[in-house]
Amino acid sequence: MLGEIIAIGDELTSGSVLNTTSYFAAGQLFAAGHEILAMTTIGDAPDLIGRTLQRALQRADFVIVTGGLGPTTDDLTNAAVSSALARPATFYPEIFKKIQAYGKSLPAGQQVSLEKLAWLPEGAHALHTEAKMAGYFLVQDGKPIFFLPGVPQEMKDLLLETVITRLAVWDGEEVRQVRQKVYKVVGLAESEINRRLAHLEGRDPRVRLGYYPVFPEVHVSLTVTGVSSQEAEAAMHKYAGQVAGFLGDCCYGSGADTLEGVVGRLLAGRGQTVAVAESCTGGLIGHTLTKVAGSSAYFLGGVVAYSNGLKERLLGVNREIILRSGAVSAECARAMAEGLRRVTPVDHALAVTGIAGPAGGSEDKPVGTVYFGLATPEKTQTFLFRFSGERTQVQALASQTGLDLLRRHLLGLDNGCRTV
Amino acid sequence: MLGEIIAIGDELTSGSVLNTTSYFAAGQLFAAGHEILAMTTIGDAPDLIGRTLQRALQRADFVIVTGGLGPTTDDLTNAAVSSALARPATFYPEIFKKIQAYGKSLPAGQQVSLEKLAWLPEGAHALHTEAKMAGYFLVQDGKPIFFLPGVPQEMKDLLLETVITRLAVWDGEEVRQVRQKVYKVVGLAESEINRRLAHLEGRDPRVRLGYYPVFPEVHVSLTVTGVSSQEAEAAMHKYAGQVAGFLGDCCYGSGADTLEGVVGRLLAGRGQTVAVAESCTGGLIGHTLTKVAGSSAYFLGGVVAYSNGLKERLLGVNREIILRSGAVSAECARAMAEGLRRVTPVDHALAVTGIAGPAGGSEDKPVGTVYFGLATPEKTQTFLFRFSGERTQVQALASQTGLDLLRRHLLGLDNGCRTV
Repeated sequence: MLGEIIAIGDELTSGSVLNTTSYFAAGQLFAAGHEILAMTTIGDAPDLIGRTLQRALQRADFVIVTGGLGPTTDDLTNAAVSSALARPATFYPEIFKKIQAYGKSLPAGQQVSLEKLAWLPEGAHALHTEAKMAGYFLVQDGKPIFFLPGVPQEMKDLLLETVITRLAVWDGEEVRQVRQKVYKVVGLAESEINRRLAHLEGRDPRVRLGYYPVFPEVHVSLTVTGVSSQEAEAAMHKYAGQVAGFLGDCCYGSGADTLEGVVGRLLAGRGQTVAVAESCTGGLIGHTLTKVAGSSAYFLGGVVAYSNGLKERLLGVNREIILRSGAVSAECARAMAEGLRRVTPVDHALAVTGIAGPAGGSEDKPVGTVYFGLATPEKTQTFLFRFSGERTQVQALASQTGLDLLRRHLLGLDNGCRTV
Repeated sequence: MLGEIIAIGDELTSGSVLNTTSYFAAGQLFAAGHEILAMTTIGDAPDLIGRTLQRALQRADFVIVTGGLGPTTDDLTNAAVSSALARPATFYPEIFKKIQAYGKSLPAGQQVSLEKLAWLPEGAHALHTEAKMAGYFLVQDGKPIFFLPGVPQEMKDLLLETVITRLAVWDGEEVRQVRQKVYKVVGLAESEINRRLAHLEGRDPRVRLGYYPVFPEVHVSLTVTGVSSQEAEAAMHKYAGQVAGFLGDCCYGSGADTLEGVVGRLLAGRGQTVAVAESCTGGLIGHTLTKVAGSSAYFLGGVVAYSNGLKERLLGVNREIILRSGAVSAECARAMAEGLRRVTPVDHALAVTGIAGPAGGSEDKPVGTVYFGLATPEKTQTFLFRFSGERTQVQALASQTGLDLLRRHLLGLDNGCRTV
C-alpha cells in the first residue's frame, strides 16, 4: 500500500529535535512491503495539520501521524483532527480509567492532569488496550489514519505491535510486492561502489539500486518488485549474489548486521577474546563492542590511555618511545597493543592512537592521522590511516576502521581495498 | 521569512537513512529569524519532486531542496526541476572545468564521470565558486530556491556559508523577529518540567514554551517574538531568568551547551582532572568526555573493566567483593573508583557498574540497575539508579547520569532532584 507519514511538532520545524520517528516508520513499512510517498514535518499549527492530513488522504492509501498527542499545552493534534475531519472531541471513559491508574502510579508531585488524553476525535479506536499512552486510529473514506505519540520509544512500540499488523490484513488493496536487501560496506567510497555496480542498472525494470552514505559506512540497497511474491523473490535471488560479488570483501554484512555484531560473531564462533587500548577514540571502540547484547562472551574491556601518563602506567609503554616517535606513531600503537596483551590474558589486542583535532596536527602528522596496532599470539601489525573530517568524524572513522581491521584479521583478508 | 525544506532520496522514504540535513537546516534558519512552514521528504520521483516544489513556491517565501544532485544514476532532482519549472538543462562550462579538476585529483580507478554535475536547469547560479560539489540557486517568481547536496557535511557547509547570508539580505520582505533560548535539563521528567512552567504560558501572546525529550535529556525552548529586535530582546530578557529559576539545578546549560562540555569547563577552570572506570557502559563516558576538543587538559583516560578479571587486574578490585556482593554492587563501584585513584594520579575517579540487559537481571537487581562510585581526595560516594529501556538506552542513561553526578559534585549540589 502507498502511505504518507506526517510528523508534528514545533520542536521539529525549529530544528531543536531530530525527527527519528518518521525514519523508523519508513524503514519498517518499507520492509513490510509498503511504499512511502512523502514524509512531511510541520509545526503545532492546527490549520496546517488539517490541510496536510486532507492532502495525504487524497493521494495515499494510509496515513501515519506522530506527535502532538501528549498532555502538555502545546499538543494540538487532536483538536486539529477534530476540526479538519468534522469529528467532534469525544470523551472516552475507558481510556480515562486507564490513564488515571497510570497517573496515580507516578511519584507524588508529578501527578499532572492527564484527562486531556481521554478526549479524542469522534470514531477513534485505541490502538492498544494496555499501553499507558496509547495512540489511536480512525477510518476516513475507507482509509486508516494512525495517530502515534511523538516520543520515539512509545511510537516504535505501537508501530511494531499494532500498525504494521493492522495494515497487513487491511481489505481491498492490490499489494505490489517489494523485496529489498541492504548491503553494508566499509572502506570504499560511494563513487567507487557506483562504478562497480552501474552496469547492473537499467537492464531490468524490476531492479533498482540505491547508494547511501551512512557515515562512516556506505549502504547499498537492492530493491526488486514483482506482481507476485514469487516473482519478487525470484528477482531478488537472481541479483542478490551479483551485487555481493561486485562489492567484494568490503561488504561486511547486510540488513540488520552491524560491524560490531559481525566481529562479535566471528570472535564468539572461535571462542576468542578481544580487548582495546584507546587513545584518540576515548572509549568509542569499547562502547561500540558492548552495544551488542552478550558481548561479555568475547570482550574483556581495556584501557582508555588518553594521557601519555596512562599509556605508561597502565600499558607499560616505554617513555623512550613517546619521546622518540611521539604518542601518535606506529611504535606507540605497537607498544600499546603489546602492553595490553601483557596485562590481560586476551587473544586479540587492538590499539588506536591518533590526532582527532581540531588542534594537535603538524605537517608530518596532520589532523586525522591515526595509527592502529593489532597484537595477537602470533604477531603484532601496525596500520596508518589519514582520515578527514571534524573531530567526532575522525573518532567515528577511527573506531569503525579499527573494528574492520579486526574483522579482516579474523577472516584472513588483506587490507588492500581500503580507500579512506 | 517563511521557508520550506524539501529533502529528496529513496534512501530517506525507505527508511534506510536518517534525514539529518532538514533538521540542521531548520535549526540554523530558525536561529537566523526565519520560520519553517513544512519539511517534506520524498523519493527520487521526478513528478512528485516537481509538484512538491511548485506547492512550496505557492505558500513559502523561499525553498531549500537537498539531495539528488550527485553523479549517480539515481540522482534525478535536476531533471525534475528542469521539467517542473520549464527550465531546460543547460551546460555550464565553468562548473565543468572545476569538476574536471576535482575528478583528476581522485585516485586512479575512482575517476568516475562527473560531467552530469555540470548540467543544471536554465538560470542556475552556482552557490560557491570554490566548493568541489557546489549547490546552486534559482529565482522563480521572485522567490529564491536553493539546491544543496544531500551529503550532510557538504550541505551544512554550503547552508552556513551561502544560504543563510543570501537570505539575510533578500529584498522586500517584512521580517518578524524571533528569539529563542533552549534549556538543557537532565534528571527531570518532561511532565514535571511542564508542571513547573505551565503557569508562564498563555499570559503573554509573544511567549511560547516547548518541551522536547532528547533522550536521555529533556530540552525546553523559550521562544519570543516581536515586531522589532528591541521588542523581541526585551521579552527574552524578561522571561529567560524566570524559566531558568523554575528549572533549578537540573538545568545544566542552554543553547549549544553539552553536559560533557559543562563538566569539562568546570574541571578546566579548577585545574582538576578526571578518569573513568567503566563496566556496563564499555567506554561511553570516556568517549563522551573526549568529544570535547581540548579535553586532554582534564581527562586522563581510565579502564574499561568489562570483565571481572579486568576489574581485579587493572583496578585491584578484591575478588572477595565480587564473590560476596557481586560485580554490580555499591561495594564494587566503590572499589573500582578507589582502585582507579590508586593506579593513576587523578582528582576525581568516576566508576560505573550495572546491568544493561537484556539478560543478566535478577529479582534483587533487575535490568537497569546501575551503581556509581565517585572517589575524590576527600571521600568516596556511591549511588544507585534503576533505569528503564533497552540495552543502549540504559547505557546512555548511565553515561549521562555519571557525568551529571560529577557536575553536581563539582558544583556542591545535592542529588535530590533526580527522578530517573
